[in-house]
Amino acid sequence: CLPAACRCCVSYSGLIGRSWAMLFAAAGFPVRLYDSLPGVAEKALQDIRENLKSLAASGSLRGSLPVDSQLSLIQAVADLSEAVSGVDYVQECIPEDLSMKEELYRQLDPLLGPRTVLASSTSCLLPSALFAQRRYPANCLVCHPVNPPYFVRLVELVPHAGTGGAALSRAHRLMRRLGQAPVTLRREIPGFALNRVQYAIIAEAWRLVRDGVMSPEDVDLVMTEGLGPRYAFVGPLETMHLNAEGFKSYCERYEAGMTSIMSAFGPLPNFAGEALDTIDQAMCARTPANQESLSARRKWRDERLTELAKMKSAQHAE
Amino acid sequence: CLPAACRCCVSYSGLIGRSWAMLFAAAGFPVRLYDSLPGVAEKALQDIRENLKSLAASGSLRGSLPVDSQLSLIQAVADLSEAVSGVDYVQECIPEDLSMKEELYRQLDPLLGPRTVLASSTSCLLPSALFAQRRYPANCLVCHPVNPPYFVRLVELVPHAGTGGAALSRAHRLMRRLGQAPVTLRREIPGFALNRVQYAIIAEAWRLVRDGVMSPEDVDLVMTEGLGPRYAFVGPLETMHLNAEGFKSYCERYEAGMTSIMSAFGPLPNFAGEALDTIDQAMCARTPANQESLSARRKWRDERLTELAKMKSAQHAE
Repeated sequence: CLPAACRCCVSYSGLIGRSWAMLFAAAGFPVRLYDSLPGVAEKALQDIRENLKSLAASGSLRGSLPVDSQLSLIQAVADLSEAVSGVDYVQECIPEDLSMKEELYRQLDPLLGPRTVLASSTSCLLPSALFAQRRYPANCLVCHPVNPPYFVRLVELVPHAGTGGAALSRAHRLMRRLGQAPVTLRREIPGFALNRVQYAIIAEAWRLVRDGVMSPEDVDLVMTEGLGPRYAFVGPLETMHLNAEGFKSYCERYEAGMTSIMSAFGPLPNFAGEALDTIDQAMCARTPANQESLSARRKWRDERLTELAKMKSAQHAE
Repeated sequence: CLPAACRCCVSYSGLIGRSWAMLFAAAGFPVRLYDSLPGVAEKALQDIRENLKSLAASGSLRGSLPVDSQLSLIQAVADLSEAVSGVDYVQECIPEDLSMKEELYRQLDPLLGPRTVLASSTSCLLPSALFAQRRYPANCLVCHPVNPPYFVRLVELVPHAGTGGAALSRAHRLMRRLGQAPVTLRREIPGFALNRVQYAIIAEAWRLVRDGVMSPEDVDLVMTEGLGPRYAFVGPLETMHLNAEGFKSYCERYEAGMTSIMSAFGPLPNFAGEALDTIDQAMCARTPANQESLSARRKWRDERLTELAKMKSAQHAE
């Protein structure tokens, strides 16, 4: 039944849960927003209402439905069996704690039908650890969004060894219908793909500061004014393809240089010591580490991501 | 005398040389474009004329001067002593070949005054290897742009042990006057900063394909739809700062996870074998590895970079 019609449930109404509910509703899917604590899902729905209004006001609302129609698709529910009754898809987004997730899954097992997809938003727990004991393991996978999901389209689909092809392909089609960009890992791997690439970058950024080569501000400029703009449009492999006469020509031409430089990377950093203070001070000089300042800077970031997302989808439509 | 008034010389009129000449002229600096082969610099000047007209037509011309004024600032010269006579700054951009660069520097040594900055555009040769034998080594440094320099603002300034603070700070001020974003390496390091970060990304991208975790297309999507949009605005260190309650809070919260994932990265890839064919086929399916197709795709990329650069400078001006 996916994705032409789909009843979804989002469990737990934190930041990621609210984003999922908004994405489902923007695509026209009825969605139940569940939180076990009474009143919390209703409160989240109020936040969503404010959020949608402000997105509409700035011209950044997703989907073709007006705010009221999108809101009417989202129902706040405090009872789990009511939340999942008759749904095709459950997106779990409770905190990153294996025992909390397992407890929820134990409650879900008798409530879900034999075809309901159960997807976890986890960024760090492996699907084999999450789903081995489930009643219908073939329906279970990780469906990991990127913060903020409303403007960053990537979703990582990660199966465990027992995930069925049907569940994987239904989740993939649903994500496409949401307007997200799903990628599929053929098997699980710690950090999935996004965080592995991110950590490879962080490791080298840290070493450049720790070894006294560059200031933290300049390390960030290397990305924001150098590599970052290209990566918003062209991935690392295509960058190689375009920066020579095709991919093989790049590898032939630069292999010796790449290998010699990579061999000089040195051991992994331990994320402590003097470099920690140096970077922390530099970051706090721009944005003090208090709620108000961090929120203002995140809002600044999200506005830019919004504008870039609009620019990219306008180009996509061309 | 820098950067209020500056006479520049760009040696060799390849793609990077032409870009530098355009950047200097856009900022109002007189520039001599030198190539030792007779007629080649004049030909490059014709290319620049066409290029500037097309940039003006698409609203992407840099600087406040009209095309004709910018063009009148660029002079094509085939004689080296005429090219550098009275200049404050020389940007060398001949091919990445140590013996070619040394031969040019040997010709330059008797021609340059005791205060003329000599900057190399090299991306891979170390300044200690380039400049140890120069007549005025304190004036010499690497000033590495990113392709395409007209729309990607980063410039890496890399001193050798004998580079003087005056030359470094003059180059820094000049780059700022060009509207570029200079970063300073405190000492030389193979790959400088940009390519070290880029190669760290490439290594992990390669392993994800080689180990059968992900298709090449999906690896690129991880960047273009996931990490890339953020990195166009927020560097890797600030991303950590914003994704928790400040940088120290991020390190405390994620250190164990990062360390465990980084430890699983495995050895460096060798850029050969089955993965090479897999990636090459995927890249060629989108853009065949011939001049015409690659040029068209590079033009597509540069148009997007142009639009993003306009968006970023509009925000900067706010």
